Amino acid sequence: MKVYGDRISGNCLKVQYTADYLGLEYEWVDTDILAGESRTPGYLSLNPAGQVPLLVLDDGRPLAQSNAIITHLARDSVLLPSDPYDRAKVDEWLFWEQYSHEPYVAVCRFVMLYQKKPASEREPWRVERGEGALDLMEQALKGRDWFSGTHLSVADIALLAYTRLAHEGGFDLDTRPTVRGWIARSEDALGIG
Amino acid sequence: MKVYGDRISGNCLKVQYTADYLGLEYEWVDTDILAGESRTPGYLSLNPAGQVPLLVLDDGRPLAQSNAIITHLARDSVLLPSDPYDRAKVDEWLFWEQYSHEPYVAVCRFVMLYQKKPASEREPWRVERGEGALDLMEQALKGRDWFSGTHLSVADIALLAYTRLAHEGGFDLDTRPTVRGWIARSEDALGIG
Repeated sequence: MKVYGDRISGNCLKVQYTADYLGLEYEWVDTDILAGESRTPGYLSLNPAGQVPLLVLDDGRPLAQSNAIITHLARDSVLLPSDPYDRAKVDEWLFWEQYSHEPYVAVCRFVMLYQKKPASEREPWRVERGEGALDLMEQALKGRDWFSGTHLSVADIALLAYTRLAHEGGFDLDTRPTVRGWIARSEDALGIG
Repeated sequence: MKVYGDRISGNCLKVQYTADYLGLEYEWVDTDILAGESRTPGYLSLNPAGQVPLLVLDDGRPLAQSNAIITHLARDSVLLPSDPYDRAKVDEWLFWEQYSHEPYVAVCRFVMLYQKKPASEREPWRVERGEGALDLMEQALKGRDWFSGTHLSVADIALLAYTRLAHEGGFDLDTRPTVRGWIARSEDALGIG
């Protein structure tokens, strides 16, 4: 299988982390977002949404959306709990990540790191929601090692991708020790960091 | 089980549509968003994100995020394809809906219907992305009855919720006949409309 991705994107790194953890073989196809390589006619024929990452199976069928890709790769593995409620909580966190975390934490990082703007030029409403998202994670992790179940799951991988880079978007994790502990634990499990 | 929801919210209606289609018994707990009932201390103790819908199982365990809830309710049912790729495509559409459709189509509807503003006061970037989302759906549905597999799935239910109300957000579906056909087909399958 092929993974079209850009390693500046946490969404793409989720796929790398998951596939490497599971020991899956894949070809990484560097796709430069900033150079428009995810908007060419050829790319859009594979993914009309024009986004990375994109998984292309050996038979040519494409699958988009980072959290859908990692859930698919992780099916029947330790990265997805078998208990139905724990499994559903993984989904809850995956959807929360895309709706209430990524549009704030990742977009602020994009503004600072790639648009080269100072923290003060981040949109205030995005900063506020990003801070709120990190606070919610700090509370949710109190007394537990992982976001769902008793093992690292794709929920941890999805949330890790941009949370471990939150400082690049002007967010301070020093005030969130529980999140920091979980980041270290997750990085250790994944062999990254 | 209990469903905390507000029927002005398409996200909440997804749960109603799914549970009713599957013939599941549940108690609907009206939760008035505009009156702040999803932000009370009691509600936040169940769902710290302060969002509806929320599913509370008979043993008291809560599950948030509309698309996680309907996926959980639909497990082992005809609303989730058994083929792994078709199943993954359902997830792709569910994540796309929350990231690339709801924040534009649903938010524009909220502005017009509940904030009582004219269409001209919708944020232009949200309108543009909403139009793009509807165009993408029109293309994706060409030559097929459902978003994934050969049967109505939770992907159709999730996308239906706000698409069938898109006109309330100032979007014109007359130019998207394929989407209109799919709406009619989905409403017929669900017995609504």
